[in-house]
Amino acid sequence: MSTIWHHIIPEEDRAASRAAGFGRPSGLGHRPALLIIDVQYRTAGTRPMPFDLAIKEFATSCGEIAWQAIGHIAELLALFRERNWPVLYPYVAPKFGFDQGRLTEKVPTMMEIPAKGYEFVEAIAPRAGDVLLPKKHPSAFFGTPLASYLVNTGADTLVVTGCATSGCIRSSVVDAFSYNYRVAVPEDAVYDRNQTSHAVNLYDMAEKYADVMDTKALLKALSELGHANAQEISK
Amino acid sequence: MSTIWHHIIPEEDRAASRAAGFGRPSGLGHRPALLIIDVQYRTAGTRPMPFDLAIKEFATSCGEIAWQAIGHIAELLALFRERNWPVLYPYVAPKFGFDQGRLTEKVPTMMEIPAKGYEFVEAIAPRAGDVLLPKKHPSAFFGTPLASYLVNTGADTLVVTGCATSGCIRSSVVDAFSYNYRVAVPEDAVYDRNQTSHAVNLYDMAEKYADVMDTKALLKALSELGHANAQEISK
Amino acid sequence: MSTIWHHIIPEEDRAASRAAGFGRPSGLGHRPALLIIDVQYRTAGTRPMPFDLAIKEFATSCGEIAWQAIGHIAELLALFRERNWPVLYPYVAPKFGFDQGRLTEKVPTMMEIPAKGYEFVEAIAPRAGDVLLPKKHPSAFFGTPLASYLVNTGADTLVVTGCATSGCIRSSVVDAFSYNYRVAVPEDAVYDRNQTSHAVNLYDMAEKYADVMDTKALLKALSELGHANAQEISK
Amino acid sequence: MSTIWHHIIPEEDRAASRAAGFGRPSGLGHRPALLIIDVQYRTAGTRPMPFDLAIKEFATSCGEIAWQAIGHIAELLALFRERNWPVLYPYVAPKFGFDQGRLTEKVPTMMEIPAKGYEFVEAIAPRAGDVLLPKKHPSAFFGTPLASYLVNTGADTLVVTGCATSGCIRSSVVDAFSYNYRVAVPEDAVYDRNQTSHAVNLYDMAEKYADVMDTKALLKALSELGHANAQEISK
Repeated sequence: MSTIWHHIIPEEDRAASRAAGFGRPSGLGHRPALLIIDVQYRTAGTRPMPFDLAIKEFATSCGEIAWQAIGHIAELLALFRERNWPVLYPYVAPKFGFDQGRLTEKVPTMMEIPAKGYEFVEAIAPRAGDVLLPKKHPSAFFGTPLASYLVNTGADTLVVTGCATSGCIRSSVVDAFSYNYRVAVPEDAVYDRNQTSHAVNLYDMAEKYADVMDTKALLKALSELGHANAQEISK
Repeated sequence: MSTIWHHIIPEEDRAASRAAGFGRPSGLGHRPALLIIDVQYRTAGTRPMPFDLAIKEFATSCGEIAWQAIGHIAELLALFRERNWPVLYPYVAPKFGFDQGRLTEKVPTMMEIPAKGYEFVEAIAPRAGDVLLPKKHPSAFFGTPLASYLVNTGADTLVVTGCATSGCIRSSVVDAFSYNYRVAVPEDAVYDRNQTSHAVNLYDMAEKYADVMDTKALLKALSELGHANAQEISK
Repeated sequence: MSTIWHHIIPEEDRAASRAAGFGRPSGLGHRPALLIIDVQYRTAGTRPMPFDLAIKEFATSCGEIAWQAIGHIAELLALFRERNWPVLYPYVAPKFGFDQGRLTEKVPTMMEIPAKGYEFVEAIAPRAGDVLLPKKHPSAFFGTPLASYLVNTGADTLVVTGCATSGCIRSSVVDAFSYNYRVAVPEDAVYDRNQTSHAVNLYDMAEKYADVMDTKALLKALSELGHANAQEISK
Repeated sequence: MSTIWHHIIPEEDRAASRAAGFGRPSGLGHRPALLIIDVQYRTAGTRPMPFDLAIKEFATSCGEIAWQAIGHIAELLALFRERNWPVLYPYVAPKFGFDQGRLTEKVPTMMEIPAKGYEFVEAIAPRAGDVLLPKKHPSAFFGTPLASYLVNTGADTLVVTGCATSGCIRSSVVDAFSYNYRVAVPEDAVYDRNQTSHAVNLYDMAEKYADVMDTKALLKALSELGHANAQEISK
């Protein structure tokens, strides 16, 4: 059970929410799929850098904190590779003039990210057979065929990793939950440019939508899923 | 410009985000529609009560803080009535046995809300001609025909009010933004059981998805929209 | 393999389509769910009547042909009940003034269906535990949480029955196919007010989206699915 | 009013449908957008060829009939260019191994289309500023952000052209109608590999979802829309 938000959400408030019945675990199912969302150089930088410098490379960069998360994503990815479980990569598609809209009004710098920024970070990059999902909006489900790929794999559980906790992660988790997938969010394998938003969004997700824990605990829980199930999925 | 999150998000972090280009205004369009989300007794209680008591009436109640927001919603509603602008009521549909799923695992008390809880709070209740949208999931768009009603009205701007800031409001705002609607969130006309989540979700929305201000400022901005536009909408 | 469209689609055209590679079977999966779409008195009439009379009772009625299909739906339903497989009822929700839109412009009589028309036909009516899905648009997926209920059941195969072949059946089948569900359409358990549209829509679906066969053949194929799978679904 | 289906749908059946209230016009709105769907060499061939030869170039080709339609699409496109109205190109995205699913089971040849087949037919190809929408499923709306682009343009009316009448056109029209857009289908600017399906799908759409007419009549109706509106759209 995560404690990452304890310094921000007073115990009194957490207790009140528990009293109302929020925050129960939903658990893992039998057929997990891994989502690695927006782990492109545009959110991590081409190498670990302090935030102030990082945003000079790519305005949307989260800086060195991204690289800690990427290390944890790589651990999860290794297990999914070993078990031959499905791995999907929703990612920010390069923007064209016709993409001007609400997003580029709220964050105009989005239109000026150099091409390199759209490449996948090498440490967790996709390989043949992984599902690639270009997207134009925050949720990995919105305006993409993600739901169709998930039906095709037979997944019942989504492990959601990447960036940003308060943006594409949060909205993808809410949609996954709304589709009735079980959702696990490894708190140290998601990242955000703002640490308060990071912690409070993890709290909100733990209260209402997902099971939040660290990568170590999640790896243990996933490892205990039967190999039989893994074979069924990978057929 | 809201300051409701200033005590939680350090100025240093807010400045860093501004430097990266986040949080620009998207402004109002010409044809607003009002969404009043989940303002049912289940989120407000049948009368203003302290949170501890309120959750004994309905586990999902936010307590007396809801009633302050409802007063502000009523002010916005009065302007929309006067201008004959569209008003839509996405609301939580009563639950049946077949609704067991991820929601009822995370928050089992959701299944036990008495029928009275599903009624609209009288002060802002719908009248004939308003659009009623029963929903089963957080976002007012998910699994509902809200997008179709909006196309039908020709709206380009959504004023999003109701409950909970960190739940149905947040997810509806992200979807509205993703559909390219301009979104205004009056910070004192949305409510939540948790004040930290309330403030940080408003910050996240202001950074990425919506214009956040108080009801007074929003009423002023809406009043300045031409009556000609209002007539066009209501035809 | 259906022959219902042979008198309308020339063999030469069917051969050309086969040569291009269309119309291969997709087969059944392991976990079927039954959709009974719009089998309400508004599409069947309160009893079997010739079409000319039937549309005087409800403008949207298909007349006596509906009742032949309902007999076949009842056979399929009996098997699903026996196996404890999921049964879902997408149905036309009663219309309100705020539902005026494109539908009521194309077919104004839709607004004038008496309340009795919205009741389920008794022979196939839902029982406790079945999923009820009011809808406002043709596809059972559009603006409804059907996809979420399907994820919750773990279904991989949909048996689509009801009305109208060229309307809500066709659009639901295309969406189910797009979500990557395996789709079976029993040609004598779907019905339409127009026999040419009925046959050609079955042909289109067989070519591109679904496996089309008669109820007898489908019952046989479904019966051969293991009881083990059935238990897994109903848990 | 189209008569293209008169030889297939008996007058008696058409009269019955009219008596029930189907097939009323929905008319044009004020702000049209043009959808050119799947007009790629994979559906038309690199030049006009008889169907038998055409499917040897690309299995999904419709042969020379495509080129007649493309001539009419070009006429519509010229008007949209002149008025500076929005033009959108939903198109079939190249397929990868991970796209195996229901589509490739029903039509395995879909996986073997050479790269040239995915290029836009030059006569109607997009120019800078047009919206490009790669898609994986029949409807231009399914798993794409088309709805968001439409909200952004403020369109209220869609002119739907391209291929195939009984496939991507039909499903896109049903979705557009479900979103409450006014839909016009120019019968000679859409094409299909099967002429019976072509005619009956046009009939179905005219009955329930769209206004169907020839390009000449549609050009006349569009020309009468005020230039003021056009300016409003293009701003």
